[in-house]
Amino acid sequence: MKEYMQACQERCEQALETWLPSPAIQPERLHEAMRYASLGGGKRVRPMLVYATGRALGVEPEQLDGPACAVELIHAYSLVHDDLPAMDDDDLRRGQSTCHKAYDEATAILVGDALQTLAFKVLCDDKQMLADAATRLTMVQTLALASGSRGMAGGQALDLAAVGRQIDLAQLENMHIHKTGALIRASVKLGALAAGGADQGPVTHLDHYAKCIGLAFQVQDDILDVEGDTEILGKTLGKDQAQDKPTYPALIGMSGAKEMAEALIQEALESLLDLDERAEPLRWLAEYIINRKH
Amino acid sequence: MKEYMQACQERCEQALETWLPSPAIQPERLHEAMRYASLGGGKRVRPMLVYATGRALGVEPEQLDGPACAVELIHAYSLVHDDLPAMDDDDLRRGQSTCHKAYDEATAILVGDALQTLAFKVLCDDKQMLADAATRLTMVQTLALASGSRGMAGGQALDLAAVGRQIDLAQLENMHIHKTGALIRASVKLGALAAGGADQGPVTHLDHYAKCIGLAFQVQDDILDVEGDTEILGKTLGKDQAQDKPTYPALIGMSGAKEMAEALIQEALESLLDLDERAEPLRWLAEYIINRKH
Repeated sequence: MKEYMQACQERCEQALETWLPSPAIQPERLHEAMRYASLGGGKRVRPMLVYATGRALGVEPEQLDGPACAVELIHAYSLVHDDLPAMDDDDLRRGQSTCHKAYDEATAILVGDALQTLAFKVLCDDKQMLADAATRLTMVQTLALASGSRGMAGGQALDLAAVGRQIDLAQLENMHIHKTGALIRASVKLGALAAGGADQGPVTHLDHYAKCIGLAFQVQDDILDVEGDTEILGKTLGKDQAQDKPTYPALIGMSGAKEMAEALIQEALESLLDLDERAEPLRWLAEYIINRKH
Repeated sequence: MKEYMQACQERCEQALETWLPSPAIQPERLHEAMRYASLGGGKRVRPMLVYATGRALGVEPEQLDGPACAVELIHAYSLVHDDLPAMDDDDLRRGQSTCHKAYDEATAILVGDALQTLAFKVLCDDKQMLADAATRLTMVQTLALASGSRGMAGGQALDLAAVGRQIDLAQLENMHIHKTGALIRASVKLGALAAGGADQGPVTHLDHYAKCIGLAFQVQDDILDVEGDTEILGKTLGKDQAQDKPTYPALIGMSGAKEMAEALIQEALESLLDLDERAEPLRWLAEYIINRKH
């Protein structure tokens, strides 16, 4: 499993390296900062979901580099903007200074903007992918829907609105469905789209898998924010509590949160029952999400 | 001419109104702010270029609403982010408070992010457009290239890097080619793409037209920043000078700048010589750019 995950991470890193403009090209500082914010770190969960989903449906990895890269660029852009002083005001990310700390705020805003644009560009330009124009357009559409005001960016807006306010479990779930869930589901959908004319049956099950692990991922994040280790996490600990953010442990207690994460992972695994051994990495990923320490 | 321009502005306003999510939909405040930042104002120069280019090549206006809307959403997003305190720190835009003043900085960052995403979504989703998937994908590609780090966002990075520094005419032109020129050229290109299999001849000429008016537009902006009227402009005057930004009047004198703008417009008009009377709005637009007071 470790080997497979590492191979995916290396593929993704290589693809990002290729797509990100060289810091030798003008505007140099922006290009350098774009690389700083997206290369050499991160768990690459979303790209791994693209690779693992594609694999489960018989797609070659070369066909998946573009989509994997695109979802990671969207994720990287969102981290850069979320860390800004006007948003979550974070100094530490992936164990190093956040983009606006390492560069400056104006650069960090532009880095996020340009990483988002690059994600869509990759889906159009990628020559390795054999997908036809209609499939690529559906990929662009899927990624746009998942990232915009009704997806990830909207989830961040709900998150900001919830700080310091009492919200209930339904509202917390709604926030996470948008903030992280939408892009995780899009990752799985892009992997399935790369398979072209796949049956609708497995795709529906895969989407349910994605919904479950997306939420489990967030519950585990909340747990780690309380029980984790700053050094391993690579970001400031106890941040949610300090900012009076609603979390699962706060709403349903620590053991309730752990049970919930466990149940979601079980449900995710059940959605994969119809798939053969090529879906093994999807099963690993589900378990990784709940067992991870960062 | 006024009538035609007004009709285009109304079409564009109507299209934006349709595509922007309702403020009744969650997250309400973000959707309200997205509408605040893009509806009810602006010269709509880029949409007008889409309509006028399409018309010159015989395309019906309904085919152009989507692309017109997409370029304006990219433009609107760039204004919201450029106005942020960490960037140009502007309080006034289109005669009203800038987005981060009317709402808050975090919301303004998300507004820009989500407007960008929406631009790509519109090109995928628009049902009025008859363009096939391959053409739409080329539109997405064109818009992404023009907006990203090698286009508009890169131009803004060059602009920020130039503040307080001595730059020469070539560097100033390079900055503007990226910051405003790229999106203006993309607007014309999208209008031409909507025409489908248009001859390459007119398209090359139209691209040269777009290059010339893009630069003329910026020269005129610099002139207006010195000679304009705050009330008509709807933004703070003398801002460039106060921020020690390089401008054409500063580099080549006021009369030099005016001659340059005039020469560029002449060159733009010459690029249209092979086109028939349907290209009249493109000629009007070229003249409007140099005669405008805001």
